[in-house]
Amino acid sequence: MAGSSYGTIFRITTWGESHGKALGVVIDGCPAGLELGEEDIQRYLDRRKPGTSALTTQRKEDDAVEILSGVFEGRTTGTPISLLVRNTSQISKDYSDIASCYRPGHADYTFDTKYGFRDYRGGGRSSGRETIGRVAAGAVACKILERLGIRVRAYTRAIGPVEIDPSRYEEALRLSTPTAMPDAEANEKARDYLAQAREKGDSVGGCMECLVDGLPAGIGDPVFEKLDANLAKAAMSIGAVKAVEIGDGSLVSRRCGSENNDAFFCAADGSVTKLTNHAGGILGGISDGSQLVVRAYVKPTPSIYQPQKTVNQSHENIEIQIRGRHDPIIVPRAVVVFECMTAITVLDAMMLNMPAKLDSLENFYRN
Amino acid sequence: MAGSSYGTIFRITTWGESHGKALGVVIDGCPAGLELGEEDIQRYLDRRKPGTSALTTQRKEDDAVEILSGVFEGRTTGTPISLLVRNTSQISKDYSDIASCYRPGHADYTFDTKYGFRDYRGGGRSSGRETIGRVAAGAVACKILERLGIRVRAYTRAIGPVEIDPSRYEEALRLSTPTAMPDAEANEKARDYLAQAREKGDSVGGCMECLVDGLPAGIGDPVFEKLDANLAKAAMSIGAVKAVEIGDGSLVSRRCGSENNDAFFCAADGSVTKLTNHAGGILGGISDGSQLVVRAYVKPTPSIYQPQKTVNQSHENIEIQIRGRHDPIIVPRAVVVFECMTAITVLDAMMLNMPAKLDSLENFYRN
Amino acid sequence: MAGSSYGTIFRITTWGESHGKALGVVIDGCPAGLELGEEDIQRYLDRRKPGTSALTTQRKEDDAVEILSGVFEGRTTGTPISLLVRNTSQISKDYSDIASCYRPGHADYTFDTKYGFRDYRGGGRSSGRETIGRVAAGAVACKILERLGIRVRAYTRAIGPVEIDPSRYEEALRLSTPTAMPDAEANEKARDYLAQAREKGDSVGGCMECLVDGLPAGIGDPVFEKLDANLAKAAMSIGAVKAVEIGDGSLVSRRCGSENNDAFFCAADGSVTKLTNHAGGILGGISDGSQLVVRAYVKPTPSIYQPQKTVNQSHENIEIQIRGRHDPIIVPRAVVVFECMTAITVLDAMMLNMPAKLDSLENFYRN
Amino acid sequence: MAGSSYGTIFRITTWGESHGKALGVVIDGCPAGLELGEEDIQRYLDRRKPGTSALTTQRKEDDAVEILSGVFEGRTTGTPISLLVRNTSQISKDYSDIASCYRPGHADYTFDTKYGFRDYRGGGRSSGRETIGRVAAGAVACKILERLGIRVRAYTRAIGPVEIDPSRYEEALRLSTPTAMPDAEANEKARDYLAQAREKGDSVGGCMECLVDGLPAGIGDPVFEKLDANLAKAAMSIGAVKAVEIGDGSLVSRRCGSENNDAFFCAADGSVTKLTNHAGGILGGISDGSQLVVRAYVKPTPSIYQPQKTVNQSHENIEIQIRGRHDPIIVPRAVVVFECMTAITVLDAMMLNMPAKLDSLENFYRN
Repeated sequence: MAGSSYGTIFRITTWGESHGKALGVVIDGCPAGLELGEEDIQRYLDRRKPGTSALTTQRKEDDAVEILSGVFEGRTTGTPISLLVRNTSQISKDYSDIASCYRPGHADYTFDTKYGFRDYRGGGRSSGRETIGRVAAGAVACKILERLGIRVRAYTRAIGPVEIDPSRYEEALRLSTPTAMPDAEANEKARDYLAQAREKGDSVGGCMECLVDGLPAGIGDPVFEKLDANLAKAAMSIGAVKAVEIGDGSLVSRRCGSENNDAFFCAADGSVTKLTNHAGGILGGISDGSQLVVRAYVKPTPSIYQPQKTVNQSHENIEIQIRGRHDPIIVPRAVVVFECMTAITVLDAMMLNMPAKLDSLENFYRN
Repeated sequence: MAGSSYGTIFRITTWGESHGKALGVVIDGCPAGLELGEEDIQRYLDRRKPGTSALTTQRKEDDAVEILSGVFEGRTTGTPISLLVRNTSQISKDYSDIASCYRPGHADYTFDTKYGFRDYRGGGRSSGRETIGRVAAGAVACKILERLGIRVRAYTRAIGPVEIDPSRYEEALRLSTPTAMPDAEANEKARDYLAQAREKGDSVGGCMECLVDGLPAGIGDPVFEKLDANLAKAAMSIGAVKAVEIGDGSLVSRRCGSENNDAFFCAADGSVTKLTNHAGGILGGISDGSQLVVRAYVKPTPSIYQPQKTVNQSHENIEIQIRGRHDPIIVPRAVVVFECMTAITVLDAMMLNMPAKLDSLENFYRN
Repeated sequence: MAGSSYGTIFRITTWGESHGKALGVVIDGCPAGLELGEEDIQRYLDRRKPGTSALTTQRKEDDAVEILSGVFEGRTTGTPISLLVRNTSQISKDYSDIASCYRPGHADYTFDTKYGFRDYRGGGRSSGRETIGRVAAGAVACKILERLGIRVRAYTRAIGPVEIDPSRYEEALRLSTPTAMPDAEANEKARDYLAQAREKGDSVGGCMECLVDGLPAGIGDPVFEKLDANLAKAAMSIGAVKAVEIGDGSLVSRRCGSENNDAFFCAADGSVTKLTNHAGGILGGISDGSQLVVRAYVKPTPSIYQPQKTVNQSHENIEIQIRGRHDPIIVPRAVVVFECMTAITVLDAMMLNMPAKLDSLENFYRN
Repeated sequence: MAGSSYGTIFRITTWGESHGKALGVVIDGCPAGLELGEEDIQRYLDRRKPGTSALTTQRKEDDAVEILSGVFEGRTTGTPISLLVRNTSQISKDYSDIASCYRPGHADYTFDTKYGFRDYRGGGRSSGRETIGRVAAGAVACKILERLGIRVRAYTRAIGPVEIDPSRYEEALRLSTPTAMPDAEANEKARDYLAQAREKGDSVGGCMECLVDGLPAGIGDPVFEKLDANLAKAAMSIGAVKAVEIGDGSLVSRRCGSENNDAFFCAADGSVTKLTNHAGGILGGISDGSQLVVRAYVKPTPSIYQPQKTVNQSHENIEIQIRGRHDPIIVPRAVVVFECMTAITVLDAMMLNMPAKLDSLENFYRN
């Protein structure tokens, strides 16, 4: 399994390289009857588009999506939805210097070892452009989740040492700041921090956070297909992510059980909630009705404008100087990818959950 | 998919509850010709056995494994290997107090919500005993990996605030200390720390680390089936794990690219290595030939001996007092589970990698 | 994938060899809340038991099933159901003559080629005893289908040239005649035919038919996962089946469209039916609400009591004489296997179908 | 799983409707290093193109394929290969008469029931045009198999009552006669037979046969993933196929074991063959080194030019008269689809087989 598919019932298959003719995704298993237009998808793709601020690469990428199948008279038909984005602004000559050498922090060496050769124009399949398919499919998943009363939102939690203060969270900022930080003050500080890195020809890392509200309890499975296990895979499958946390994450390792356990509480209306949410909305791999909290830590962009030691294909030690246009940080553009992967994971788990009880199956087919 | 299977070619299916008749695993896709006896598997199961020290629960669990199929004249036949462990010391009455209430930090509430009712004797399917199948299967994966020159080893990296010092690492201690810490000094400190928690009827968390040596470059896939994505899923699917890191993990989010990039280097013998290994052995989802480094953070055992607020099945707010025998920490027994899940993940990725090049396929079938 | 699992949501994994310690199955994804006891399963296993008449092998096989997990207080819990059948009457010495030679019509040669060696005691994994797991799991699927108002029944349609006459169909005979023929006259003729074959030390083939009543329209998928495609796979995965038909099967190849098309018809109550059912209940891979009709053609038992030319492991041309106890025909015992595989296929397709419409998903989670 | 994907390691995902913008396929898991150009694929697509003779529909379909990804400098890179065919000659108004009624023998009714509505322009997703993606992917599989010395070829075995005589088989005719019959005499007779049917506005069925030469012994799995089970699924997943046979197929049900068993024989060079091949090259689900023989029976095209009784969406009994351009027989164009599905199945089984022996795994990674 070359691994370009994700999901079991709501299943996506992405394809395309940074400098090929096009990129895209096939969504198989999308329920029939969803109103869907290209604008629904474009809105999400635009969030990962570069060139929107000084923070991101200066390349111009239009990334206009075309729906090729699976939608008839404005509604999904239940058959595969094929989405296509043509590559328009990729200039191959920019990358000729790296054709025969292995850039540190990139997948050049591992691709050559695995496949015998590689598409050396940019990152090829391991480019950030690979995520176009994920985002296009995620836009559809998000639209379905909205219909179910579920809201998924990701944002930048930290850029280098600059962290947001959750008490200053403003939803409007989440989609409008160039850093994707929902905190005006942190956004300013982060821009300064990034400007310094850029001046040195260096790059920086950061942290993304994704919240899911409205997810009912009971979603996920108890062993290998734990909801948190799949959320971790989804996040870690995004290039440059090196750590994933659920709820309070690594902090719990230093806590006592008496601090970390979330007490259940029954409200006046009879509904069960938890007094705290250290668990991040998942117990035993299954959603508990609280907010899902997932965090992903991203490494600094490996493409930097400083000379670096490395090896070429002839296995000679050399020094390289990367040119071209690269983001000094991946995080602000990766946030929507994280949101989309989370949405797909949650939606697929909800679909898989439908026959968990015999009663559900019986009600479904008897009525 | 109820999610009790893991892996694609080397595929395991576990089953069993804490207080059922037995637990076990079916390994499908194990290559034919491996010498295998019950003692190979028992050795791993014994590492997760409780009652070996004051740190772990005082229950006596024999957990003797029986090979029911797939082995003929001492060698695997290529057909499914069924492994069985009878439950012998589970006493159901110990758990009668929790039948109708939702223990904080446990999966009682989420199971009831998902399935309509639950096996309330102990953790049922979400008990730590579920991992018996994983460990039994992992023992087989480890034996195969050894044949391929690959060594997987996990140990306790931290218990609460007590961390090991890698410079004091002693392999002999890894399998012999009650904390599974490979550092004598940290082991001592951790025991003190645990003794204090136990006195208060409280529990603590910790951190596990797993290293894989000898893995060739080129293993893993570039998009959704990244090796690190699958390692993250494998780790996060272990109950109580709340965070996973690859290589330097969350630390990279505060680094610059110039610090974080690992320079490639060509040794005198022509082999390519990296001068540092911040990446933890994986670039672009594919192994780079360096040591794999995976870390998993574990929450404190939710069963504590202090009164806790919670809710019962009738949705009344109540206070409970958990009784019975519970580990004050899960980590020392979970380490072998982590090792086994990592081994299965790596082995499966190696099998899936075989037809990646046309040359490989051609050589395989032409010769 | 060594291929011992079947199904996507209702997923079974079988294991065991003819002469190993035991055989069994793990059912993962069974909905919670089904009343289930060993007797529900035993009833189906008894239908494939040999020694019930002169037609079947004289071996005594008890095949008593034990439920090891997944059932609590008489109901399924939603977690994996592990079913075990110990091998009690297998006598290995019976088979010593065939250890080093390749029996015609058996899988000895192909197993040795694929795996390098084989469990030479009986058929090993390719023995008819492998189907114990399928039948045990199928019993559970059938019980669920009954709850949904769906009835699956298979029977012997032909033994050699002796065919049943559908107009003489008697349901009571289906489960009681030694031939599994639901037609008293055909049963008598078939017994005579079999007696003759047995006298010559020869064996015969036959045909099985399976009908599914009560299946709603809309089950199955339009492309690769067509319901008929999966029913064909299910049937052909039973050892010795060499042909599969849906509805009128191969006869349609000689028909004109005007004869073969089934006209739709709307009854007085507004329900849509078809005036004929040449299609066997499936159009475009999806059930159409009519009776499902599947047929499977079975080759004569390869074990015969006549000298046969073959080759041994040293690649010498030899003559062999098979001894031991073998059915002169497989069909009467395979009928329940066919029924069970059909039931599992249909149930799994029904589970997968649940989120096909957005409305269904919305109703499920909104109410 | 909406079921638009097929294969495990060599995995294809098709998409597109008869009257949408385009159709296509994503091939994931194609080994790196295969020389591949659009002409390799076009050659196969042209074999399913209509309008090449009086026998097939008079529509003009260009079906020009475009490679969008996965090929760099003329060779496959190991990443997904996306293939696109734009729909150019589909005229929607031709189909306006069928928008609200259920054509007999078509999937109109089942689609409406499953999905709530359907793309009523032509067959939508259940159109024969859906097979464009299968053929495009199959062309790649065939090219790889050729490199491994394996040859897959399908042809028309019968049209209505007109059967080919294998003794008159001419390979040149297989790809050149309008019937796809490799026998000049049968081709002539079949054309006459078809002309008569066409005159009456009727349609006819037929039989396709596929042979695989050069496949080594040992490919396939012993239980659910039997090679023959997967070949049956592959064939039955082609629209209009109602029966599948392996080797002598349904004939074996009337044979004695002494006739039907294929004797093994060791040739002078030490190689093992069989003296006959009733089994069609598969024993116990695993290839035995003989020629694979698969047969598929196809129903007459449901679109006929005679008035037919049926039901409309308002559940009224009506009479319809289908117009438009339709093949009087599907078989000659379906032959290449059958060939392609067989090739994909065989190639995928070969890839999955690679780690069957520990020795193979060890040799692969040790050398």
